[in-house]
Amino acid sequence: MELGFIGLGRMGGNMVRRLSKAGHQCHVHSANQTTREALAKEVGTVSYADIGSLVAALAAPRVVWLMVPAGEVTEQVLTELGQLCTSGDVIIDGGNSHFKESVARAQMLAAKGILMVDCGTSGGVFGLARGYSLMLGGANEAIGRIVPILDTLAPGIDAAARTPARDGGPQAPGEAGWLHCGKPGSGHYVKMIHNGIEYGMMQAMAEGFALFASAGHAVVEEDCRYDLDLAAIAEVWRRGSVVSSWLLDLGADALASNPTLDQYSTEVADSGEGRWTIEAAIDQRTSAQVLAAALFARFSSREKNELGNRFLSALRNKFGGHPSLSSKG
Amino acid sequence: MELGFIGLGRMGGNMVRRLSKAGHQCHVHSANQTTREALAKEVGTVSYADIGSLVAALAAPRVVWLMVPAGEVTEQVLTELGQLCTSGDVIIDGGNSHFKESVARAQMLAAKGILMVDCGTSGGVFGLARGYSLMLGGANEAIGRIVPILDTLAPGIDAAARTPARDGGPQAPGEAGWLHCGKPGSGHYVKMIHNGIEYGMMQAMAEGFALFASAGHAVVEEDCRYDLDLAAIAEVWRRGSVVSSWLLDLGADALASNPTLDQYSTEVADSGEGRWTIEAAIDQRTSAQVLAAALFARFSSREKNELGNRFLSALRNKFGGHPSLSSKG
Amino acid sequence: MELGFIGLGRMGGNMVRRLSKAGHQCHVHSANQTTREALAKEVGTVSYADIGSLVAALAAPRVVWLMVPAGEVTEQVLTELGQLCTSGDVIIDGGNSHFKESVARAQMLAAKGILMVDCGTSGGVFGLARGYSLMLGGANEAIGRIVPILDTLAPGIDAAARTPARDGGPQAPGEAGWLHCGKPGSGHYVKMIHNGIEYGMMQAMAEGFALFASAGHAVVEEDCRYDLDLAAIAEVWRRGSVVSSWLLDLGADALASNPTLDQYSTEVADSGEGRWTIEAAIDQRTSAQVLAAALFARFSSREKNELGNRFLSALRNKFGGHPSLSSKG
Amino acid sequence: MELGFIGLGRMGGNMVRRLSKAGHQCHVHSANQTTREALAKEVGTVSYADIGSLVAALAAPRVVWLMVPAGEVTEQVLTELGQLCTSGDVIIDGGNSHFKESVARAQMLAAKGILMVDCGTSGGVFGLARGYSLMLGGANEAIGRIVPILDTLAPGIDAAARTPARDGGPQAPGEAGWLHCGKPGSGHYVKMIHNGIEYGMMQAMAEGFALFASAGHAVVEEDCRYDLDLAAIAEVWRRGSVVSSWLLDLGADALASNPTLDQYSTEVADSGEGRWTIEAAIDQRTSAQVLAAALFARFSSREKNELGNRFLSALRNKFGGHPSLSSKG
Repeated sequence: MELGFIGLGRMGGNMVRRLSKAGHQCHVHSANQTTREALAKEVGTVSYADIGSLVAALAAPRVVWLMVPAGEVTEQVLTELGQLCTSGDVIIDGGNSHFKESVARAQMLAAKGILMVDCGTSGGVFGLARGYSLMLGGANEAIGRIVPILDTLAPGIDAAARTPARDGGPQAPGEAGWLHCGKPGSGHYVKMIHNGIEYGMMQAMAEGFALFASAGHAVVEEDCRYDLDLAAIAEVWRRGSVVSSWLLDLGADALASNPTLDQYSTEVADSGEGRWTIEAAIDQRTSAQVLAAALFARFSSREKNELGNRFLSALRNKFGGHPSLSSKG
Repeated sequence: MELGFIGLGRMGGNMVRRLSKAGHQCHVHSANQTTREALAKEVGTVSYADIGSLVAALAAPRVVWLMVPAGEVTEQVLTELGQLCTSGDVIIDGGNSHFKESVARAQMLAAKGILMVDCGTSGGVFGLARGYSLMLGGANEAIGRIVPILDTLAPGIDAAARTPARDGGPQAPGEAGWLHCGKPGSGHYVKMIHNGIEYGMMQAMAEGFALFASAGHAVVEEDCRYDLDLAAIAEVWRRGSVVSSWLLDLGADALASNPTLDQYSTEVADSGEGRWTIEAAIDQRTSAQVLAAALFARFSSREKNELGNRFLSALRNKFGGHPSLSSKG
Repeated sequence: MELGFIGLGRMGGNMVRRLSKAGHQCHVHSANQTTREALAKEVGTVSYADIGSLVAALAAPRVVWLMVPAGEVTEQVLTELGQLCTSGDVIIDGGNSHFKESVARAQMLAAKGILMVDCGTSGGVFGLARGYSLMLGGANEAIGRIVPILDTLAPGIDAAARTPARDGGPQAPGEAGWLHCGKPGSGHYVKMIHNGIEYGMMQAMAEGFALFASAGHAVVEEDCRYDLDLAAIAEVWRRGSVVSSWLLDLGADALASNPTLDQYSTEVADSGEGRWTIEAAIDQRTSAQVLAAALFARFSSREKNELGNRFLSALRNKFGGHPSLSSKG
Repeated sequence: MELGFIGLGRMGGNMVRRLSKAGHQCHVHSANQTTREALAKEVGTVSYADIGSLVAALAAPRVVWLMVPAGEVTEQVLTELGQLCTSGDVIIDGGNSHFKESVARAQMLAAKGILMVDCGTSGGVFGLARGYSLMLGGANEAIGRIVPILDTLAPGIDAAARTPARDGGPQAPGEAGWLHCGKPGSGHYVKMIHNGIEYGMMQAMAEGFALFASAGHAVVEEDCRYDLDLAAIAEVWRRGSVVSSWLLDLGADALASNPTLDQYSTEVADSGEGRWTIEAAIDQRTSAQVLAAALFARFSSREKNELGNRFLSALRNKFGGHPSLSSKG
């Protein structure tokens, strides 16, 4: 089907490639001229220098997919689209917006008859080949209109063996690799929690591999000290173990080419969704010990000044006379 | 090849089935007569009423695989085997023994020339079909002797797509699905950390799904309250998402047949390895915030008396006059 | 000095008593007629049936102290006061408002020339006798105007031995028991973190005492199992130990009269500030592992449905065949 | 009364001073000649070059107090004392031994009729003036014999206002500042948990003050960014707040002389008891989320290689194409 596509970065570009390959006609725009023209040429479509011309080129009722950075850029583009689009148009925000903002935006656009869909998109740089796991919030009517796109972008039911309890039964919601989660905001909500879980799983693995790295620590009694091959361990777990997972596959790949991982930073970035998950846990009065510990471990990795640790050393010095002075002191 | 197999429970029975099907000749023993006779009949082999007759039936140098409960039973069987076996024999402990005990046992058996191998075994009830991920510690000579068994029990290199960084290269350690991790104890050590990670990953998912369940909590503002289909979410994530994993597959299966999971207990059991992982983290002076939080969450799930919480309520009542009295008070 | 006082609950009533006893003239209002008339009679002052008459009775420039529930009530009273008060008046919000709301309110009132002070108040039901620890945010001019009240409400420098590093020196900020922390919102910000710390300290103690309660757990080897007197332990720590603290004093008191604490609830309430502290940590990208763990432990204490734990049991059942079925299943 | 005292370090030296000042006759030994001779001269007593002469100088039944480093030194001295002492003698280990070792040692010495007392000692360098909080395990007979020493070393009932629920009643166990906790090992057990709580309380405060230090973080919206005076905040809380405590007093002192704490190390040491507390929690199947988080935060403060964080950066790079490369890579 015909659609507008705004935002052609790492994610958006590949999504346009996947859509075009399947025969969908994408009218594309990116603020970056080189990017939009190169992609248009690559997939054989038309690019537009501004959003206005893109919207003008689409026949109403339109479908426009956004894949732009969450926050200000998304706000700006949605505001502009809100002015250009007309009743019956469907706008999909496929980025990492906060679900509460998506709720507010859907309400604002609904006032003009425009149907907004919030779509959480997982899959990263591998999505082009594997397809994207899509979590959607919005009105039934809007979702119904974009099913052909969703079926193309998602991995499809054959991407995984069917769940035993469903085997032989009719295709259930979600099995296509996309899911209409509920009313506006629910797509981004589910994607947010997805990323929260991702943080927790990543940290669990990171702690386990850190234990392998310190298994030879001098304070451990010698007969129980081990010099382990982390890359090989990741490999053996990929086959038959309980922790086999896509994240483990990625870890195995990183370790295979850089066994000490010393080309990767010790400072770990975080993005909105990991943080928002903990805020949601607080809002919902629901314990999330592991998800919070995982988030805070990332903060710790980047802390420099560390007044907290100095405070601990100071107390130890005060009550115990322990020599906790800084070498810089 | 010919081997003795002691312990025919959920894990051991399936391992004998997998070995027999591949042509290995298993001489089997279980303390349970019905179990051992039924299995011997099923796979067409001989069962023995006691360990002495099993050892006598094997030609030296022998290979004996143990799949019995960790702790006392393992200690007892290994002591008996230590008396019956002779120099050059290989004994594999495939159970969940503590790695420090395995170190001590290997040293004790080595004094008699018996080679002990500690083997961490992952795969659960699915191992029969999928194969087992095997992590081994012990002398090179011992591992070398049992390669045919390991190749049969493990899933094999084709069980997973090759790691991109290894693609086209020679088969690397671990890719067969079994790995010689290092000296005695290292197999059980790696398996222990594996289970520690498993606890962390499980808890990360559990907290995420708990957030879905409480997404409709009354204190959340109404427009941001969702009534979500947990089973469908698990399904959509199985295809293309970053959190896709075998544990998610299992969760999807449980949710598909029992969407509220109310047939499962709210009290979560734990086994030695999750606990030992935290002790190892302490021994190695290595932070394991998420793994510890996951373990303690299980303890919390089973706590009844909860003096700690009463203590908090008591303090709140004392300093703030908050009505923290028990309804039973 | 003369001031208006709105809100005569557990905290506010005692503050009026402490102020009146020191000779300040409090004009009081509470929505509850019985409360306001009883208190006015008790301390020998005038009560007002509505805020309008209270404001009218005060000579400009006025000082009005609020001690009403955070959230809607505070919002409503401040809105009313904003309409009734005039340029140069000082309004103090001594409740537990979110600091961001205090920032917004101060800006709103500043537009009319009204000076708002946000005041975090610690001390609980003991404040009447001990005095209150007061943390204030707002303009210098406003704080300057209310020093006589602050000096009365606060415990004063003699309430604690002087800090050794300050001994013999001039009185430093904070030593009076009240502190001008900075610009608007900073008083409530500091009070918020105070409560966050309080949660962490309480949970640390609660976990320690829970360990005493389970020191006789059957799985512990018999010679290392203890039957401990928790009340006596709290008492011995009150004298000379590193953990001696006001919270310990309260715990000792609770244990002295109810050694098992069984008259206190196992469900622990939480209030805004403990939750907001974690949100602030997230906003500031600062790790707060202990403060978050303490908050979530309270959520856990109240969780009923516990889908998360059922999810764990379900996974264990699926991969290991463990009998994790609910007794209700 | 007459006693032998072995170990004259920071703690032991001050304990001898406190005992001597109260008229007890201490026969002292330290491996360090200068130390033992200087102290003997200072307090007017006799020092001995070896343990044998010290024991020989004491009339049976003897009392010998040990204040030497836990672990090897304690083991060695107790072994020697076990050979030199005779039935009816009392030996007190006042150091930080693991309670399970104390159980084993008490059993070993009991075979010779020697009564061992394990004594957890809190108070640090301030104990000389404030007195020590003493937690004791051992036979009633042994404790009964040393009451005069305990009464001298402990702060005494007047060191704190009586707990309201006990006021007017008879002196209860623990109120003297020393407590017979129970059978052998229980003194060190209670002291271990005491230190575990201490870790948790310290970390709670450290996190709170770290939040103050980052309250001006650039990502926070400007109107809600604060530049706070940490030393003044510690001071205001010392008077009337819920978090007032001895640890806060020490923090206030450190901040008063070094407001940025930059003379203190960012690497925080830990000692056995903090670690053992978590192991005890695991043994007792009791959740200790906060105590474990506090311990692991200390480990994190000292971690250098940080494979765990590199692992996280590697995964982010792999799935998202995020530029997580090390600047050293």
